[in-house]
Amino acid sequence: MAGHSAPATPILKDELDIVIPTIRNLDFLEMWRPYLQPYHLIIVQDGDPSKVIDVPEGFDYELYNRNDINRILGPKASCISFKDSACRCFGYMVSKKKYIFTIDDDCFVAKDPSGKEINALEQHIKNILSPSTPFFFNTLYDPYRAGADFVRGYPFSLREGAPTAVSHGLWLNIPDYDAPTQLVKPLERNTRYVDAVLTIPKGTLFPMCGMNLTFNRDLIGPAMYFGLMGDGQPIGRYDDMWAGWCTKVICDHMGWGIKTGLPYIWHSKASNPFVNLKKEYNGIYWQEEIIPFFQSATLSKECNTVQKCYIELSKQVKAKLGKVDPYFTKLADAMVTWIEAWDELNPSENAATELPPNGAAPKK
Amino acid sequence: MAGHSAPATPILKDELDIVIPTIRNLDFLEMWRPYLQPYHLIIVQDGDPSKVIDVPEGFDYELYNRNDINRILGPKASCISFKDSACRCFGYMVSKKKYIFTIDDDCFVAKDPSGKEINALEQHIKNILSPSTPFFFNTLYDPYRAGADFVRGYPFSLREGAPTAVSHGLWLNIPDYDAPTQLVKPLERNTRYVDAVLTIPKGTLFPMCGMNLTFNRDLIGPAMYFGLMGDGQPIGRYDDMWAGWCTKVICDHMGWGIKTGLPYIWHSKASNPFVNLKKEYNGIYWQEEIIPFFQSATLSKECNTVQKCYIELSKQVKAKLGKVDPYFTKLADAMVTWIEAWDELNPSENAATELPPNGAAPKK
Repeated sequence: MAGHSAPATPILKDELDIVIPTIRNLDFLEMWRPYLQPYHLIIVQDGDPSKVIDVPEGFDYELYNRNDINRILGPKASCISFKDSACRCFGYMVSKKKYIFTIDDDCFVAKDPSGKEINALEQHIKNILSPSTPFFFNTLYDPYRAGADFVRGYPFSLREGAPTAVSHGLWLNIPDYDAPTQLVKPLERNTRYVDAVLTIPKGTLFPMCGMNLTFNRDLIGPAMYFGLMGDGQPIGRYDDMWAGWCTKVICDHMGWGIKTGLPYIWHSKASNPFVNLKKEYNGIYWQEEIIPFFQSATLSKECNTVQKCYIELSKQVKAKLGKVDPYFTKLADAMVTWIEAWDELNPSENAATELPPNGAAPKK
Repeated sequence: MAGHSAPATPILKDELDIVIPTIRNLDFLEMWRPYLQPYHLIIVQDGDPSKVIDVPEGFDYELYNRNDINRILGPKASCISFKDSACRCFGYMVSKKKYIFTIDDDCFVAKDPSGKEINALEQHIKNILSPSTPFFFNTLYDPYRAGADFVRGYPFSLREGAPTAVSHGLWLNIPDYDAPTQLVKPLERNTRYVDAVLTIPKGTLFPMCGMNLTFNRDLIGPAMYFGLMGDGQPIGRYDDMWAGWCTKVICDHMGWGIKTGLPYIWHSKASNPFVNLKKEYNGIYWQEEIIPFFQSATLSKECNTVQKCYIELSKQVKAKLGKVDPYFTKLADAMVTWIEAWDELNPSENAATELPPNGAAPKK
């Protein structure tokens, strides 16, 4: 039976890195100080590497600019995007921690309906440390939350749940809309606080936003590649979507869960919809082919590590989406480069994460 | 783009029947008077037919007891359960309306967090009149609600949505737990008001509770059979679950959506967990076989009406679940009897609901 006691949430201080992509001074961290200062930050500086980024006093961090990325990865740096927040995934690669929390620098601390500040990371940790329920829907949402449980008719054999790989948080104020929706509804604000966490069911894709995201890097890290976006690429603002589609297909294959809902952050500023439209228009068109591709993608039994899954997926991307646009052939190659670079920087992991697919918990 | 304007909700006075199964006087309707009095009630009296059921003044109703059911259906009355709230589905069959709202007689008007009474039926009507999104998950939940929309990365080709067949409402106070969970957590109350409506994705089963439920009878009525429960049967309290599993498989096949979440009702009284355990124990055991059966059930292209889907499903129940227990052979036969009885009482419908399966809207 779930939810019997609600133990104090561990803060995972030595097991979690915070990854922040940015082009500017990180003043936004001031508001987060009470919640995030205990953690180590990995700052991925995008754009002009000669620019100096100010980080508020007292935060423990390492910072990588484009020169660092080129130096560390050599020719493989080609898989890391430039002039797009997709560059954040470099931070996932250089981290050595079990968990990653990534947040955008225009996201502030939100308040719950009682006016209390929301400790977003604490809620992410609750989400990621409790199991998911991808195989059957629970109508009272996350059965592992205090005050909730599995409802009548929920099979007992599924009540242990599955390991949680990802916790996807949401946004109050500026919703994460595409450019056409931004243009049509410039004044819409998200004011609805939905007090729920739920598992996205197996077999269902979702639009993963990178603004407020936590994942178990040991489990799913190598799938969290944010693609080729921005400078020199025909597309932007689909970095997190790409990572989300790949991650969901691989989690479904491995038997792991993805949760969405709480925690909320306060998203302060809508990006320019005209600029966004230019970045997005290929993605808006291509996603009509990409999504059916991912909906029907299956991975073979031999894919028993995330790396193997990801390489297999890259082959399918090349074979099937390569016909849509030559960009996808380049992206498929970059997916392979990403895995090579990941394994180079994380040499011990490749062997360690061999798991029987479908529902098995990691053995470490 | 969804949610641009929020038109006044039609009350569907002439298009909706309220079905209430009961064994007692319907005093609970007093609290519902402001919300439900405009509608016609179909009361299905369970148990001793000689007992007189009081209905509060001013409500418009028809009442059927066991003698009525036997008289109207003749030998086919065998498919309607006795001494179990499963008898409610007789009310669905005799209704001539497009929509059904069914509610238990221990459910009262709930309040939202601001203290305002919740007009449950109004919310059900909003849910059922707006489309569903079964093919891709929207992280801001129902995109058709005021103040919400589809988020970045949601395919534009799917933004029209699918017809909504079912609106599944939830319960504050006494949660809908099975007997083992009731026994372990006798004091647990549901106090969390989750301000969300969402579509259960295609391919995902859920535990459908019959306590607070609305459906489009023209679309899905013949699948809303609550099975053989109670008197003379080896199982109880799985009537709504059975209907939910069959309905979900058929909605998935036909391309229709099922929503869950708002509205809440106030569930006043936990039923006796010891009695429940006796009713449920076979179901708790059998559901471990039933759910994989429904998860893998597929219907052929020829199944282009709900009736045809349901007959096809009954054959699969007999062939596959008949091995689990002879009860399922009897249930499969009752499923056929139910459809025969439905078509007899609703002679014009059988032809009218022929639809191309998978995603097509009804043509009437």
